[in-house]
Amino acid sequence: MTASQSPTRIVVLAGGVGGSRFVRGVRAAYPDARIDVIVNTADDITLHGLRVSPDLDTMMYALGGGIDDAKGWGRAEETWSIMAELKAYAVEPTWFALGDRDIATHLVRTQLIAAGARPTEITAALCTRWLGDEPVRLLPMTDDRVETHVVVADPEAPSGRRAMHFQEFWVRHHAEPEVLEVLQVGGESASASDEVLAAIGAAELILIGPSNPVVSIGPILATGGVRPALRAVTAPVVGVSGILGGAPVLGMADKLLPAIGVEVDAGAVGLHYGARSAGGLLDAWLVDSGDAAAAERLTAAGLPTLATPLLMTTPEDTARFIREGVGLAERADPAVVERAPASRSHQDPR
Amino acid sequence: MTASQSPTRIVVLAGGVGGSRFVRGVRAAYPDARIDVIVNTADDITLHGLRVSPDLDTMMYALGGGIDDAKGWGRAEETWSIMAELKAYAVEPTWFALGDRDIATHLVRTQLIAAGARPTEITAALCTRWLGDEPVRLLPMTDDRVETHVVVADPEAPSGRRAMHFQEFWVRHHAEPEVLEVLQVGGESASASDEVLAAIGAAELILIGPSNPVVSIGPILATGGVRPALRAVTAPVVGVSGILGGAPVLGMADKLLPAIGVEVDAGAVGLHYGARSAGGLLDAWLVDSGDAAAAERLTAAGLPTLATPLLMTTPEDTARFIREGVGLAERADPAVVERAPASRSHQDPR
Repeated sequence: MTASQSPTRIVVLAGGVGGSRFVRGVRAAYPDARIDVIVNTADDITLHGLRVSPDLDTMMYALGGGIDDAKGWGRAEETWSIMAELKAYAVEPTWFALGDRDIATHLVRTQLIAAGARPTEITAALCTRWLGDEPVRLLPMTDDRVETHVVVADPEAPSGRRAMHFQEFWVRHHAEPEVLEVLQVGGESASASDEVLAAIGAAELILIGPSNPVVSIGPILATGGVRPALRAVTAPVVGVSGILGGAPVLGMADKLLPAIGVEVDAGAVGLHYGARSAGGLLDAWLVDSGDAAAAERLTAAGLPTLATPLLMTTPEDTARFIREGVGLAERADPAVVERAPASRSHQDPR
Repeated sequence: MTASQSPTRIVVLAGGVGGSRFVRGVRAAYPDARIDVIVNTADDITLHGLRVSPDLDTMMYALGGGIDDAKGWGRAEETWSIMAELKAYAVEPTWFALGDRDIATHLVRTQLIAAGARPTEITAALCTRWLGDEPVRLLPMTDDRVETHVVVADPEAPSGRRAMHFQEFWVRHHAEPEVLEVLQVGGESASASDEVLAAIGAAELILIGPSNPVVSIGPILATGGVRPALRAVTAPVVGVSGILGGAPVLGMADKLLPAIGVEVDAGAVGLHYGARSAGGLLDAWLVDSGDAAAAERLTAAGLPTLATPLLMTTPEDTARFIREGVGLAERADPAVVERAPASRSHQDPR
């Protein structure tokens, strides 16, 4: 790939709501590219016997035109009969709102899991409906089960601490309790699927979306095989900050970053991912124009960083800053162009 | 129990749609009695991973005021989002219509089965919502899994025969194929629950509802322990024909009776259940006023039979003929009164 060539294969690492907006921007920036989106599945949860994959579903509905645009998650034209009935039966939990149309997706997924299919295969089957022949593929970060749990301060617990599923913290408790620790249950033994590793190996551009660094991007990077695969690629790796002016645009990353010892700051998150030259992942990092001071500081410290408006108001806005980030990676390290994998086999084990 | 005394404990054997109308009549006839309804579960089916118990649910919704009165089954104010989604995902089967509210019941049941609860316990839990403190209890005929399958003529099959779940025959194929055989899969090893046997033992009146003799009442009677328990009771056993003038009022019993060698005739069904005096179950049998000839014939043959209007237009209509049937049983065999179990312990193992 050169500055004048568009990448034909792109990998995006992403969570749900912000991630799906980001991918729409990637589509707009490179309409001819095949895009593999590696999606966080550590938010997954089993509710009422149904396996729910919030980030995959948000991504699928958003890219497939089935999302509730006003909420940014869940299905358009949703009905809520089942939740009303579960409440009438006094069946818990009811704090996680599952719409009827959404539940159909979970029924299909749960059935396919019971039939022995891998999440990667199930996602492909569901996406047949939503993405059809579009050159976008959603890949669960792993076929293994990983769940983010958080340990929060609880003065009423004997130990002063209480563990709960991330969704319980996020949805039920509105991220209000103080987070002492973030755990990836099952994370130690989870490994990336062959599809994920092959996609990374074949990519000509890798984008780390502005999703939550702790509970969306973090679990993807922690999945066995992902970080070595990213460090082995010759394709440029460009990251985008979801923290703008010291606060997340979407979600509540500010509640979670302190628990992993990272400041709620675009520069701090960039250094958390790290410059490739310093053993990290990034060839370039994008921060919002309001964080220009951080950009100068990081660039001086060896992580090429550009301050540019990051609000994803339209796919075209997003496409602009993505192209800027790719340009930065190429200018910052001309070797990125030299290392382009155009002649490299997709089977290359690096 | 005497003719002037009302039974305080009644057992009803019943299927779904007709059965629930019948039970409403029993409630009207004996408002102070405790009613245990032994419900057919051989219509049960697993669809999309959900365990569906059509007869139990119809009974529950009907008695609890949640039924779609126009259809006679399913939930009032139902929505159909999930079926629409399953069709959009091209997931089969879609011939069995599952409403969203109804699916909530199946989700709760399926979860409780997975948690190890018995169908009897699950039904009690669901009925907490629907029946509250009403003195009506629904008892699945067994906690074991029994499914009615039918073998139909299929000229395209190499053997000329094809087996399918009863619901597939009934709902998908509208009972159109010729039925060669009716099978109770799992029936050989199914046994009645302790609750069913205790209810029969404690009953002061037993009513066999006008439900389908082959696929509703038949599986109940075939459940291990039920027939001996019914033959051991001293309480009168009164049956009601669902065949009026040579045709079923509801459903398609006429498609199934020939497969078990029984004529589609109120008299033939009465003789199929049999007079207690001849080793059968019935102390009295009710046929419609249009079947007066059959009534005379059966009475002469030793099965006390009354011809009376059987249409269950209102619960009061139903209550009237139920009381007539009980009166007939008492008049026909004064020993029924003598044998009344008022002083008999409920633990009596008979």
